Amino acid sequence: MTNKPLIEPQKKQSHLTVDSSSYKSQSKHSFQTVYTYIQTRIQRGDWQAHAKLPSVRQLAEDTGMHRLTIFKAYQHLKEDGHVYARDKSGYYVQPPALQVLTNEAELGLPLFQGNLGELHRIEATYQFSKALITPNLLPNHYFAEYVKQVFDLYPKLLGTYATAQGDLELREMLQRYFTDTAQFHVHADEILITTGAQQAISLIAEVWIRPGDHVLIETPAYASALDVFEQKGAKLVPITIDANGYDLVQIKEAMKKYKPRFFYLNPTFHNPTGVCISAEQRKQLVDLAAQYECLLIEDDTCHDIYFDQKPPLPLFAYDTEGYTIYIRSFSKYVSPGLRMACIVARPEWFTPLLAAKSLADGGTPLLNQKVFLLYFTSSRLQQHIEKLRIALRIRLEIMEEELSSTGWYYETPQGGFNLWVRLPDHLSVPELLARCLKQSISFVPGSLFDRNDTSQQYIRLCFSFASEHEIRQGIQQLVSIAKEMEST
Amino acid sequence: MTNKPLIEPQKKQSHLTVDSSSYKSQSKHSFQTVYTYIQTRIQRGDWQAHAKLPSVRQLAEDTGMHRLTIFKAYQHLKEDGHVYARDKSGYYVQPPALQVLTNEAELGLPLFQGNLGELHRIEATYQFSKALITPNLLPNHYFAEYVKQVFDLYPKLLGTYATAQGDLELREMLQRYFTDTAQFHVHADEILITTGAQQAISLIAEVWIRPGDHVLIETPAYASALDVFEQKGAKLVPITIDANGYDLVQIKEAMKKYKPRFFYLNPTFHNPTGVCISAEQRKQLVDLAAQYECLLIEDDTCHDIYFDQKPPLPLFAYDTEGYTIYIRSFSKYVSPGLRMACIVARPEWFTPLLAAKSLADGGTPLLNQKVFLLYFTSSRLQQHIEKLRIALRIRLEIMEEELSSTGWYYETPQGGFNLWVRLPDHLSVPELLARCLKQSISFVPGSLFDRNDTSQQYIRLCFSFASEHEIRQGIQQLVSIAKEMEST
Repeated sequence: MTNKPLIEPQKKQSHLTVDSSSYKSQSKHSFQTVYTYIQTRIQRGDWQAHAKLPSVRQLAEDTGMHRLTIFKAYQHLKEDGHVYARDKSGYYVQPPALQVLTNEAELGLPLFQGNLGELHRIEATYQFSKALITPNLLPNHYFAEYVKQVFDLYPKLLGTYATAQGDLELREMLQRYFTDTAQFHVHADEILITTGAQQAISLIAEVWIRPGDHVLIETPAYASALDVFEQKGAKLVPITIDANGYDLVQIKEAMKKYKPRFFYLNPTFHNPTGVCISAEQRKQLVDLAAQYECLLIEDDTCHDIYFDQKPPLPLFAYDTEGYTIYIRSFSKYVSPGLRMACIVARPEWFTPLLAAKSLADGGTPLLNQKVFLLYFTSSRLQQHIEKLRIALRIRLEIMEEELSSTGWYYETPQGGFNLWVRLPDHLSVPELLARCLKQSISFVPGSLFDRNDTSQQYIRLCFSFASEHEIRQGIQQLVSIAKEMEST
Repeated sequence: MTNKPLIEPQKKQSHLTVDSSSYKSQSKHSFQTVYTYIQTRIQRGDWQAHAKLPSVRQLAEDTGMHRLTIFKAYQHLKEDGHVYARDKSGYYVQPPALQVLTNEAELGLPLFQGNLGELHRIEATYQFSKALITPNLLPNHYFAEYVKQVFDLYPKLLGTYATAQGDLELREMLQRYFTDTAQFHVHADEILITTGAQQAISLIAEVWIRPGDHVLIETPAYASALDVFEQKGAKLVPITIDANGYDLVQIKEAMKKYKPRFFYLNPTFHNPTGVCISAEQRKQLVDLAAQYECLLIEDDTCHDIYFDQKPPLPLFAYDTEGYTIYIRSFSKYVSPGLRMACIVARPEWFTPLLAAKSLADGGTPLLNQKVFLLYFTSSRLQQHIEKLRIALRIRLEIMEEELSSTGWYYETPQGGFNLWVRLPDHLSVPELLARCLKQSISFVPGSLFDRNDTSQQYIRLCFSFASEHEIRQGIQQLVSIAKEMEST
């Protein structure tokens, strides 16, 4: 999309014959000057890999050019793989290794941007990168039925806006649901409907993060959350998560030292590691949060996707001090096409969140909320989830079977969608990814979940999207590609 | 919602008997100390009306208290009408006059926050504040039909995520539509689907506004856009719009002087004034934009809602230099319950917008996009819009009839949903609003569209939501309330 030359669309538009040569000769020229200037200094090594480049504003002042011109130059440098953007304010030098990757025409993939979304845009026969449930495992037929019902119940549905907070009937249902299933004691007024968990995360970042603020985040962590927080200019403080859960001393020290805005965490079938935090640690966490007045942003996407036994209650249920903000998504396993999630928060946190939501989009579409309401309250949902658990478990077992010959390290997750696998040190993950993509196999390299290079030898293999057959074949191929790399 | 005492929800939650008294005694106490401190200094007059109050960070340092505590105190001061928030970083002293309003229990309305959304949350029998089309004028029956069809065409629809950019089939349809109706020459890759125009505005602000940046904006202007830009910390530079359109010299000077990030404008049936900018001025505007490299953000919500003749082409069609970003919403007159809008932008602007969209919510729900696609391409849409034009025009005429006795100044709009009425200087708009709301009549005071107090004597009366009967009765009542105020 963005590789089209800048001028081309204007050409097409020449039905209005205003002189656009000026644009070519002047604007385009000037931004190319900037482009060449930066490119040259990078090649000369004046600016090393990962070095922060001068800000748009700075360059505009130095060169006397307009910020838009500098901005345009950076956009093109980014598209061409010479620089990458970390947060809104900054551009950084793209390290050569990855430039090689991105220059490989047959990849055609801007991996270097560290953006999961861009990896997901690649079509792959063996799809192990998307942590989504294949539509084949979702009750599509029933959805259709409920959508049809919705209009008998609410004939003027599409003629009506939802409120910014979300449909009251839906919020009251969720209130009952949380009380029954998670021992929450909440009021419908403390629930905000969002368009997926992604929006929930983005609203919370919008309200609480100012540039330079500290935010605690698991390492590794959900990549899209990292992107959002960095884009808001947060300084991320890594909190280790592994098979033993958290190191609470580390968390205590971090809260003490940084007075962080919040700790964003994913304690139940953590993405990407699959770890589930014990009830004991959950209790200690909420106490720490109250002691240091640090918000806990609990992202709970997979609560119902367990294989053997139910996970412990969410942190929110243990929190009597009101420092937990709870994000619950239903998109993934109920209805990706509806994009349904909610935020549960105490009144003093709720007001700014609601304001942010109304500025962000004025409210999640009403149609989606009503369809979700009908389906979620139906007996079929429970049946669906039980079937889903079994289907996912089988897929996981097949994946583990095919990996068994490798001796690669991983912990079998008790829920969720992913296997977090450590590759031997001598295996280059970027190269493996490049080779796999060429053979239409996709996975997510650990580096996308981690800003601290501690996950570089890991890969995330998702077992919820590919079919059983595809998992068998795809993992077999992936393993043989890896063996081939080792033998050469 | 937010008036509930801070502790109450925790009480309810005492099934987990962790000691929550500490919270009462400590945290709540400490934030009340801050609350009282600020309240007292305001009452003492240390801080005058509209004065900027110390930042959360500043007070945290001064008092040695945690930022969350200060933040909490400000939230409660805001809810109690003592302070208001302008942009994210700042709180200001609420002027007394408005405190009186907000203290009137029978109003129960946080008018003082300058937030349109909050005004809209009030139920009113005579609804002249919401610039929405009443569901009775929307083809609800047909919507239902198309939603049912959608599943025969796309059986796995709800099992599938949309891409962040939006459904390709829909974007290709819109590309053809814009080419045919607006002489755009765009590629489907230059179209981004958003959840309503509100999201489009918010994404653009997210990408281009840094605190302290200048933004040109019409005065008066669409209130929610003002809120978004201020929340991002923009310095708003007012550009006059009146029956003659813009003062292009003023715009040129402003572009020269401030090098603004962009000019957000609503040139077609402008909200709230109803003004439609001439083709001549549109051409001059895009030339100015290119000359000063200033983006034009063209918000085009009412393009199809004209009464006599079609409005001129959008600015985007005249712009051969690629400096216009076009926002087109279909929510209002096609399907409020779907929330459908799009952004059209040239490649160099598109990349960051797409990135912002994927961070904001990962993509507009697919269901909504497909339903909209089906309906929008049907012959019924055209019939619907033609009926709608007539219905709106009749409502407008009734409203003007009922106002005719007053001699209040207004220009009859050629399209859109609103009448922009100037009240005599001796009439207090806040008082009129207070009295009207008591009698369940709502309208929007001009001050909400204007940060420069030039619209304080104006009110926006929307004629698209109330029925013909309600318009007659409601406006009659409004007029008699005004006459009563004048006579006393």
